[in-house]
Amino acid sequence: MQKTGCPYGTHRVISPSGVLPQPAWKIDNTMRPYDNEILLDVERLNIDSASFTEIKKRANYDESVICTIILQLVKERGKHHNPNTGSGGMFIGSVREIGEKLSGKIDLKPGDRIASLVSLSLTPLCIEEILEVYIDIDQVAVRGQAILFESGIYAKLPPDMPEALALAVLDVAGAPAQTAKLVRPGDRVLVIGGGGKSGLLCLHEAKKRAGVTGQVISLNPSAAACQRVRDLELADTVIQADAQNALEVMQAVSLATAGELCDLVINCVNVPNTEMSSILATRNLGTVYFFSMATSFTAAALGAEGVGKDITMLIGNGYTTDHAAIALNTMRENPQLRELFTATYAS
Amino acid sequence: MQKTGCPYGTHRVISPSGVLPQPAWKIDNTMRPYDNEILLDVERLNIDSASFTEIKKRANYDESVICTIILQLVKERGKHHNPNTGSGGMFIGSVREIGEKLSGKIDLKPGDRIASLVSLSLTPLCIEEILEVYIDIDQVAVRGQAILFESGIYAKLPPDMPEALALAVLDVAGAPAQTAKLVRPGDRVLVIGGGGKSGLLCLHEAKKRAGVTGQVISLNPSAAACQRVRDLELADTVIQADAQNALEVMQAVSLATAGELCDLVINCVNVPNTEMSSILATRNLGTVYFFSMATSFTAAALGAEGVGKDITMLIGNGYTTDHAAIALNTMRENPQLRELFTATYAS
Repeated sequence: MQKTGCPYGTHRVISPSGVLPQPAWKIDNTMRPYDNEILLDVERLNIDSASFTEIKKRANYDESVICTIILQLVKERGKHHNPNTGSGGMFIGSVREIGEKLSGKIDLKPGDRIASLVSLSLTPLCIEEILEVYIDIDQVAVRGQAILFESGIYAKLPPDMPEALALAVLDVAGAPAQTAKLVRPGDRVLVIGGGGKSGLLCLHEAKKRAGVTGQVISLNPSAAACQRVRDLELADTVIQADAQNALEVMQAVSLATAGELCDLVINCVNVPNTEMSSILATRNLGTVYFFSMATSFTAAALGAEGVGKDITMLIGNGYTTDHAAIALNTMRENPQLRELFTATYAS
Repeated sequence: MQKTGCPYGTHRVISPSGVLPQPAWKIDNTMRPYDNEILLDVERLNIDSASFTEIKKRANYDESVICTIILQLVKERGKHHNPNTGSGGMFIGSVREIGEKLSGKIDLKPGDRIASLVSLSLTPLCIEEILEVYIDIDQVAVRGQAILFESGIYAKLPPDMPEALALAVLDVAGAPAQTAKLVRPGDRVLVIGGGGKSGLLCLHEAKKRAGVTGQVISLNPSAAACQRVRDLELADTVIQADAQNALEVMQAVSLATAGELCDLVINCVNVPNTEMSSILATRNLGTVYFFSMATSFTAAALGAEGVGKDITMLIGNGYTTDHAAIALNTMRENPQLRELFTATYAS
């Protein structure tokens, strides 16, 4: 008889009490599932880029030190939750056991291969051994186990693409899926950070939805990123500019849109101080979608007020219904994009 | 012949160059208006609560030290922008001169009394003398001048209420105005921090818009605040609970809504770590409006993903069209609320 768990995994919280697993300092990583949990064998961790960069620097790029830091962190907190960045990552693994309350009610069976779509910062994890560190792509191969809570989201790995490719796409699944839901035919859409991983997926969805009467604009400071977007024909207009320079961005977007500015701005860059660019490029009553984790809440809130812009500003929820299916399908719809992603993340 | 200014006031930025007046460290507070600026005589500063609390503590509650800190700050940066909190406040004053490009095109004339609705953190300000410190209500009476940019928003002070009352309401004008725009008939609405200043105004708007088929719920940890809401009959349900305890809040809201949770959650509290309460109290596909400046972008983004909630999360833009008119009208619509606000802020 298995123990009864809370859907959000609060039964695993050790300290401080009364909080959810993510804000918790330490959670119980005993690998015996409650009645509403899924136990998985973990093969690979995709560490959050901010966290892995921090760990790499602290380890002076020494792989054995990286291993020690990760093992110690998981031992101490019961999860891979880097206290210096607040972030975690995701994992790939296969289902070993499904809690009796969930069994038959979800679309999983033992042996199924999945990617977790909740953050490692709230996932009970136990690492027996680190097998390899892939220092350039923020991944580590491990032998270990993890628990998914009843509220935890995951995606079955698709049979028609390499796992490393699926993992790269799923890592940013929320962005293209939210783009697909926000863009309407005829919209003027700006993707800040177009040309980057999430930016390219957003451009694909925006181009498809805005259609022939819309205008999709990609903005990136890097000439190479701009060329990628041109080669893939993912934007009607490509602007090479620094998103930290709000006035330059506004002027360029104003020029590109005959002064109309954009109905929707999607911010996909992982550098700070790009809130004002996003706000100034948006038309009055338009919408900004902040997917970037470097977004400052107060900079956005006070920034829009400061320039008297009545716009809707959305916090980029990493989850939206069917986000994994929408994101993975971009690879099937766009062979050139898939080719680029395969070369970058799965070769 | 006046000099030509940028609508956003970038012509006033001294350092660092290329940024807008708010992120700027130092702006030019020469009190000679450009062609698109308004010059005002300033009578009173309403310092942002977080900033004033920080200054009071630093001054050890000594009024003369508070004056010195404020004077020095404004002299150094050309604006009241507390570097320790990032925030400013607003001011009351009267129009002295209107730039020639704006003259006749806006609804102001010299002598009009207004409240500024953009943050002091971006407003060129010059203080000649501090006349009095109102230590309990975060205000200081001054003799000085300020500049409003072309994009700067303001409200004419209404003739039918005391200025101190209008100032208290205008300080949080965005919250009730956004509530008015978001709430639909029949909605279940939770106001976290109901009973506080912005919370009471939001409850008034929510109650009016949700109507007889809706349900308005107020949540506050303080018994006195809960009693205020009951006395004013501003909520259908009053919950006394701590918004930092996400599970307690979710259970109480679930109980109050027969398990349905809320269509809209408005977060008006100025303490950290209330993102999860807001998220867990929202039904799937519902909306959270974060008005609190203590909101953490990453806690909200990762928190919603962590529990697999497909909800819309809005960054509380302090500005929305007609927000001052909507907010001030709450005082005319609700005499009991006006009585309470007058006793608290204008007696």
